[in-house]
Amino acid sequence: MTPVPRFSASQLREPIVLAPMGGGPSTPELAVAVSEAGGLGFLAAGYRTPAQVRQEIREVRRRTERPFGVSVFATPAAIADPAAVDRYAASLQADAARLGVEPGEPRHDDDALDEKLAVAAEEGVAVLSFTFGSPGKDVVERLQRAGTAVWVTATTVEEAVAAAAGGADALVVQGVEAGGHRGSFQDERPGDIGLLALLQLVGAAADLPLVATGGIMTGRGVAAVLAAGAVAAQLGSAFMRTPEAGTTPAHRTALAGDRPTALTRAFTGRSARGIANRFMAEHEAEAPRGYPDVHHVTAPLRAAARERGEAEAVNLWAGQAYPLAAELPAGELVRRLGEEARAALRAAAARLNSG
Amino acid sequence: MTPVPRFSASQLREPIVLAPMGGGPSTPELAVAVSEAGGLGFLAAGYRTPAQVRQEIREVRRRTERPFGVSVFATPAAIADPAAVDRYAASLQADAARLGVEPGEPRHDDDALDEKLAVAAEEGVAVLSFTFGSPGKDVVERLQRAGTAVWVTATTVEEAVAAAAGGADALVVQGVEAGGHRGSFQDERPGDIGLLALLQLVGAAADLPLVATGGIMTGRGVAAVLAAGAVAAQLGSAFMRTPEAGTTPAHRTALAGDRPTALTRAFTGRSARGIANRFMAEHEAEAPRGYPDVHHVTAPLRAAARERGEAEAVNLWAGQAYPLAAELPAGELVRRLGEEARAALRAAAARLNSG
Repeated sequence: MTPVPRFSASQLREPIVLAPMGGGPSTPELAVAVSEAGGLGFLAAGYRTPAQVRQEIREVRRRTERPFGVSVFATPAAIADPAAVDRYAASLQADAARLGVEPGEPRHDDDALDEKLAVAAEEGVAVLSFTFGSPGKDVVERLQRAGTAVWVTATTVEEAVAAAAGGADALVVQGVEAGGHRGSFQDERPGDIGLLALLQLVGAAADLPLVATGGIMTGRGVAAVLAAGAVAAQLGSAFMRTPEAGTTPAHRTALAGDRPTALTRAFTGRSARGIANRFMAEHEAEAPRGYPDVHHVTAPLRAAARERGEAEAVNLWAGQAYPLAAELPAGELVRRLGEEARAALRAAAARLNSG
Repeated sequence: MTPVPRFSASQLREPIVLAPMGGGPSTPELAVAVSEAGGLGFLAAGYRTPAQVRQEIREVRRRTERPFGVSVFATPAAIADPAAVDRYAASLQADAARLGVEPGEPRHDDDALDEKLAVAAEEGVAVLSFTFGSPGKDVVERLQRAGTAVWVTATTVEEAVAAAAGGADALVVQGVEAGGHRGSFQDERPGDIGLLALLQLVGAAADLPLVATGGIMTGRGVAAVLAAGAVAAQLGSAFMRTPEAGTTPAHRTALAGDRPTALTRAFTGRSARGIANRFMAEHEAEAPRGYPDVHHVTAPLRAAARERGEAEAVNLWAGQAYPLAAELPAGELVRRLGEEARAALRAAAARLNSG
């Protein structure tokens, strides 16, 4: 049997990958728009049931013949100190009461990883992207036999080397600029390296196609990571204000401002970057490492605050350059980024050859 | 009288600026080698007397007709809590005793800024670069009338906008990846933005030539920042292992390894990035903000440790991608970076146009 040729980001007409954005912003509409424009759309399987994931995959497939990807969370590590999670839940009582809810029960689950992997393989998605760790070689090979390319997120050279040894088809190189969760294998030591430094380091250490992510918002940014050796740029925040994204109104309002971002464990027990707000300021100090347990603890508070449009009490994931996000249809944004990237490379070449 | 045309980094044959590296690594030899190869050499006036600075400027000028720059520290802010500096000095007694020295006296000085500015103007240096803040408009204009281009380091959009309003000729955009001191105007809020994100943000907010710095080690890195809109790349760590650099043997040994870097105030009372070592681990927690007072306190300890080749007790400034530093003559490095940058832009353009 001839092996099924797997998708490579170097085939994309535009070197633009939509970052998976769990918890709302990722929608089938957004994935379709990006893939149809020549980029690679993505669905975020995280926090969805396997049935929902299957339904979303089928919806995208109905609306585009072009490839797209699905992202999952690798199995979370055990919680070092469950009592700390309980203490944290107790410390949120006042906030919860004000919002008319109770903190959620801490729960250590794997977000139905195996079922989601089975769905992805059965549905034959082009790319399955892992974050929070590298899957076992058996998992990688099973997906690859089903024709699915396996991408693994790396925030350090060590993670990149481990992912390459594990058989990944490509690496998603995530700089510290990135919004949302750090993709680090171990949250005790979340990678803190800037994207450009990391691309150079990983490029020297691992011989795999690199998809660059973290703080890329413009065609110049796309051109820069290609020049640094990436085959494509993965953008999240840049798409959060598009009409196709499921971004909440409170989040959209925050994205239209320019408050600084910060890393926080206060919402989920795992390092993630968001626009700094009251919840982060008040709870960061006592927030323990403990993913996804803390995620389940804060979920009712965040849902209630979201409902009320209270931006100060919800996670406003965003990368460091989010103020450059435009309100623009996603397909138009993909085309604009491609055009700007071409112009940026021409200008850089003119600069280099004029000396 | 016709105004003197001031130097612009866009005139450089190679878009490579040598980062000023105070405390030893910057030497006239290194500046000469970089300028002669078509880049822009730099002298670090910090921690030198005005007479030494004048002598170094004249030495460089004797050996090259090409332009070069000099860097200075902007006037430091007052110390918020002098007692904390005293407590910190006391906490270093055991380390000092082991090294056979006494902690230095805390001293709040401005490193003879005015005299150094006078020297730079009298000697007519091509570029004077400020870090830790933007000088007053009068200072900027005085230097510019003397034909000196004024560059100001910015780590945030706010700093970039302030520097532009202050009349700077160009901005040194410093990403969080950078080794040595953060150039932040206020150390209470040191800029933490990755270089690529910052270049896009600053490019949208300030209409000045941008010199990009932080984690750039390869021709791909140079090409990337040009694609992101910079007119030149400024590299420090990349030159620290060249024979022309004044880097100490202990520092060279550390640079040949791959230990992670971290930000620390333990050596100088101001945020700076170095290779993580014992001194940082043991003293970071109690190190107060207090520059340059803490610098003077730790100076005798660092001098003694340097003498003994004790890498665990000295500041090993390095950017996040320092493991890519090569042992290579500086002029050869400049030419290699230029060649690699051209190749990287050609490859990126081929990728973008193949889609």
